[in-house]
Amino acid sequence: MTTVFISGLGLIGSSLARIIKQGDTDVTVLGADPNDDTSQFLLAQGVIDDCTTFAEGSVQADVIILAGPVSVITTQLAELATLSLKSSVLVTDVGSTKRQVMAAAKLVQDKGIAFMGGHPMAGSHETGGRAGRANLFDGAVYFIVNGTQRLEQRQLFQRLLAPAQLRWVTIDADEHDRLVSQISHVPHVLAATLINTAADELKNDPVGLKAAAGGFKSTTRIAASDPTMWTAIMLSNTEAITSQLDAYITNLTTIKAAIAAGDKTTIHDFFDQAQRTRQHLDHTTEEG
Amino acid sequence: MTTVFISGLGLIGSSLARIIKQGDTDVTVLGADPNDDTSQFLLAQGVIDDCTTFAEGSVQADVIILAGPVSVITTQLAELATLSLKSSVLVTDVGSTKRQVMAAAKLVQDKGIAFMGGHPMAGSHETGGRAGRANLFDGAVYFIVNGTQRLEQRQLFQRLLAPAQLRWVTIDADEHDRLVSQISHVPHVLAATLINTAADELKNDPVGLKAAAGGFKSTTRIAASDPTMWTAIMLSNTEAITSQLDAYITNLTTIKAAIAAGDKTTIHDFFDQAQRTRQHLDHTTEEG
Repeated sequence: MTTVFISGLGLIGSSLARIIKQGDTDVTVLGADPNDDTSQFLLAQGVIDDCTTFAEGSVQADVIILAGPVSVITTQLAELATLSLKSSVLVTDVGSTKRQVMAAAKLVQDKGIAFMGGHPMAGSHETGGRAGRANLFDGAVYFIVNGTQRLEQRQLFQRLLAPAQLRWVTIDADEHDRLVSQISHVPHVLAATLINTAADELKNDPVGLKAAAGGFKSTTRIAASDPTMWTAIMLSNTEAITSQLDAYITNLTTIKAAIAAGDKTTIHDFFDQAQRTRQHLDHTTEEG
Repeated sequence: MTTVFISGLGLIGSSLARIIKQGDTDVTVLGADPNDDTSQFLLAQGVIDDCTTFAEGSVQADVIILAGPVSVITTQLAELATLSLKSSVLVTDVGSTKRQVMAAAKLVQDKGIAFMGGHPMAGSHETGGRAGRANLFDGAVYFIVNGTQRLEQRQLFQRLLAPAQLRWVTIDADEHDRLVSQISHVPHVLAATLINTAADELKNDPVGLKAAAGGFKSTTRIAASDPTMWTAIMLSNTEAITSQLDAYITNLTTIKAAIAAGDKTTIHDFFDQAQRTRQHLDHTTEEG
């Protein structure tokens, strides 16, 4: 019998619970969330076996999954260092950035508790435990940042999530944070800037955004995400995000100059390169 | 019996043919395309009733739809002015920008031929006649720029496309070009810049773009579009595009500074505004 405790039953935490309950039946999933409605809903649905508090869930667990935002994860790591956990417990997290989490994890690692960083690369513009689903991560990359976990602890964790058919990728915290900045954090800033700029530029236009077709909606879809979570991400990965935004602004300024100059060859090369890279992306990843 | 001639059987032209064939059975659709394979495929599928040349199709038609790129449309308008068309013919187009087209249309209007500008606000990152489909425009905005058409000609055209349940919006050419720049042309430049910048920034990263999740794919989907078409659009709507790119770069530079400064309130307001605008967009348009 394995007891898993998930702290934070939002989109990610509740989806992990659903996946774990799909697999090995000899697993008890305990859950805790600041929103008691969500916890009760998930309990009624059988997604978790019991609701508990952070301290009670932690001391009973063989695997502790910290599934809140990074700011909560770092606070909880400090709290875990003060509790009497099982000596064989594995603590892991799902935080969107890994440098701050790995630094905070030193507190529990210094107590001899095994910690392994984690980050499933999926999500949605939806939030909350009711939006979670077992197939949220199907075929997605799940980043592992090695900490002090033993091999069999990592294997146990991967076995628990086996139903999701994840692509496990080991990465170091610095590389992780630069990579997710480029493929997730920067795109969120760009999409939000686009929708805000478009709304402002078209505020006196009688037709305005109502005429937007699928392309605009697709490009700005992630701008509907939770502002509090994304503000926290900006504050926890500032250096990578601002440096990559600088590179983006430089490239955008260059192509803008080519458009202003009517430089057909440069413009065509730019769109051609983009088309080839984007088409290649569809061929190397699971979904389109 | 109405004869419709569609010049250009790509994604848009072939989809219009499919829609027209879904409606009134008393319509003959003639088609011409530089790609004879596409024409033969569409003929075999019954999407068009006959293949023809530009001149032959034009002189037989009650409605002529110019469905090529803007550069081709302007050339064809000049050619139409030299042909003996039916006196009751309506000439219309589907070009992505309208100022150049309306200026070129003066040539046919001066001969007493009715011209009406048009632009259906849908599309796809796919191209070509085989990718066309009758539901490509379902519920989409179809812009009309009034030219010299008579009311019954516009009504005939709208009746031909009735199966697509379009939202007809009358607009002037200048407003049209500013609006589509903001909701279509600028987003294409931004998405292409993102994929090119990300590929460059991650070129030495062993994981790289392969880890991209749905958000990145959605944000960059339109970057897979045809480079030749998008180069032509940049050259035909330069002023609106570069001016709106300037506004975008200014706003992006402002939020980048707030992120660099850790200005939580400004960052939160920025994402909050974006979320509200994007959610509102889903509620005011047909699809999510």
